[in-house]
Amino acid sequence: MDIRIDPARLRKDIEALAAIGRDPRGGISRPSFSRADLEARKWLKQAIQAAGLEFRQDGAGNIFGRLGGPGAAVMAGSHIDTVINGGAFDGSCGVLSALEALRRLKEEKVALSKPVEMAAFTDEEGNLVGDFLGSRAFIGALRRDDLEGGLTQIGAPFKDILAGTEFTVDGILGAGAGERPKVEAYFELHIEQGPVLDEEGIPIGLVDRIAGKRYRQASFIGTANHAGTTPLELRRDAFLGLSEFAVKGTQHVATHYEDARMTIGKVGVFPGSFSIVPGRADFSLDYRSSSAEDLAKLDKELPALAEDVASARGLSFASRIVDATEPVLVPSKLRNVLQEETRGLGYKSLVLTSGAGHDAQILAAVAPVAMIFIPSPDGISHSPQETVNWDDLEKGANLLLRAVIRTAS
Amino acid sequence: MDIRIDPARLRKDIEALAAIGRDPRGGISRPSFSRADLEARKWLKQAIQAAGLEFRQDGAGNIFGRLGGPGAAVMAGSHIDTVINGGAFDGSCGVLSALEALRRLKEEKVALSKPVEMAAFTDEEGNLVGDFLGSRAFIGALRRDDLEGGLTQIGAPFKDILAGTEFTVDGILGAGAGERPKVEAYFELHIEQGPVLDEEGIPIGLVDRIAGKRYRQASFIGTANHAGTTPLELRRDAFLGLSEFAVKGTQHVATHYEDARMTIGKVGVFPGSFSIVPGRADFSLDYRSSSAEDLAKLDKELPALAEDVASARGLSFASRIVDATEPVLVPSKLRNVLQEETRGLGYKSLVLTSGAGHDAQILAAVAPVAMIFIPSPDGISHSPQETVNWDDLEKGANLLLRAVIRTAS
Repeated sequence: MDIRIDPARLRKDIEALAAIGRDPRGGISRPSFSRADLEARKWLKQAIQAAGLEFRQDGAGNIFGRLGGPGAAVMAGSHIDTVINGGAFDGSCGVLSALEALRRLKEEKVALSKPVEMAAFTDEEGNLVGDFLGSRAFIGALRRDDLEGGLTQIGAPFKDILAGTEFTVDGILGAGAGERPKVEAYFELHIEQGPVLDEEGIPIGLVDRIAGKRYRQASFIGTANHAGTTPLELRRDAFLGLSEFAVKGTQHVATHYEDARMTIGKVGVFPGSFSIVPGRADFSLDYRSSSAEDLAKLDKELPALAEDVASARGLSFASRIVDATEPVLVPSKLRNVLQEETRGLGYKSLVLTSGAGHDAQILAAVAPVAMIFIPSPDGISHSPQETVNWDDLEKGANLLLRAVIRTAS
Repeated sequence: MDIRIDPARLRKDIEALAAIGRDPRGGISRPSFSRADLEARKWLKQAIQAAGLEFRQDGAGNIFGRLGGPGAAVMAGSHIDTVINGGAFDGSCGVLSALEALRRLKEEKVALSKPVEMAAFTDEEGNLVGDFLGSRAFIGALRRDDLEGGLTQIGAPFKDILAGTEFTVDGILGAGAGERPKVEAYFELHIEQGPVLDEEGIPIGLVDRIAGKRYRQASFIGTANHAGTTPLELRRDAFLGLSEFAVKGTQHVATHYEDARMTIGKVGVFPGSFSIVPGRADFSLDYRSSSAEDLAKLDKELPALAEDVASARGLSFASRIVDATEPVLVPSKLRNVLQEETRGLGYKSLVLTSGAGHDAQILAAVAPVAMIFIPSPDGISHSPQETVNWDDLEKGANLLLRAVIRTAS
């Protein structure tokens, strides 16, 4: 069946949503449950209803638009929240391509044997209390403790944020309970957020694996001393410990692993004065791999390397895991669907691993999942400069539509 | 003349001053022009007047107590301000030993051919607008720009701090003008703030040189990217640049210089998120040497090393000097005075270089200067744990008294 999406309409939707939450400091700031997000939800509800889909919102604020009767649905979606000063395409492309796909199915009265559903999951970006609030709630993986004591990225208690909305802790926890509809399969179109497709000039990435990751909060502890009076050989400089670990750890990961990454993105040095040798260096350690086995090895090797650096420098080292996701393999059945439909559409494609986490990774606990990537020009995302080529988005959305039809037929 | 200080009285003074500015978070917080400092000034004024010395305060808030007639004075002093959560001995020991020394001269009616003066210089610790505000003002080395646009360590405009005091920008600038009394020689007793005397078990350090230093504000600039999606080899990670420079720079200084130190004490990594490769790393670079020649070499070598690291990693590097002092050699005449009097008193001593800066370093521009160090147990200073052995303080103060007598005779 040679059905295609309407690229002009999809673009219009992307641009309409992008007008909500414009940040005077640049880009779009539309964290979940912010005023801008509540406005975006209203807009999305209207769009879903205008498309003739059945609108539903669960207790976690996940938004669905459904076509067809009861039973397990073939689902396509992503998220509409953004990072602060983010772009118009991360998440939105997946939600609005799914909306456009279902709209076309409705318009063409395509007969399917299974229901289909589009989804927009709450707070994928983790502006509230950890990444993937909505999809975690959807699969029933949130605990009350995660929510009630939670502090948001901006430092406000989560319950204060909830107070300004229709949502509640009980409602969020209830999203994964009892009446949650079954999912037959989940497709997510997303921008790559990396440079590979753009550099290769290929419009479609077929994701074979989604990397798992660990977030560790870690510290080197030494002794604060006067920078002028303490000889170098008598220092226990916590920042030098961190520096040596940063260089050696990154080298270790680059040398011994094909597909792992390590990042130190957040650093605090204390007491933090020109003339005081740092007594403490706190840092975030993010490492990822698409291999569960490699991730387990890194769970041991990176702290061990840090311990070695610490002991050689008279420091101590401590760390704990504050967030973890496991790698996901896209099942061969869905990979084959995407590959055949890509060929059928005549698009060039590349098999890719996703280094970033996505709602698909969370959904994998309850359904087979697959992802379609489209190029991120210059690899830029989470930035006001984030963009897409409209032709690539059209191709990705066409592929999403075909994959949904094929799986729901 | 076998005149000695009164150790019990000196201790009582130290303890009385230490009671002013106690910080509930620990130690003493008595930055210049704070409420606690204003109270400490009142206390010191009374103590100077009670000792029968002539009290004087200049426009920069430097406090003097004088004995004898007109003409260039032999001066002894230090400062009474502290770092935040500092100790009771850094600075205070020098001021109060000088007070005690002059009190004894007055009591014993010692006949001297030159006037003697004790001094407490404002804001040695640089809580306001750079280190050594008072002594810099005293020698006339401040510019109006340094003061008027200045932001203090706590982020408040300097003029707002002044507004709560009797002091003014014009007054501070005037301290070094016209009527400033001439200085024949300047002696400063100070805690070592390093571990050497304590480790060697020697009560007296005779300072032969005071290190010069540079404060550089520096940055590595790269590109912020998503931690999950950007392959390690495509990253331009500003924090890895800083880490490599920290390790290599410190190694370079330790290997090629006998008496230089380098410290990175203040670090800011941006945007500063678990999952974002740092696009920018700002840091403080403090390096010191007692050799003007070595300092000039480091002025070139350290930025060059940083440039090399940056270019190998696709980063850029920028830095500028935000504070600088030059090394000071203690003149052999004053060194001999101190050595002979130490021998006369039967004290063990060690010749030391001062890695920390002191008001003496600033006074060196207008007079010969010399310093006496007493041990810092465990090398600790700028900390609530800062302490002294009272016996060492007594010895140091006796030496100060003898040196003043000898020089003013």
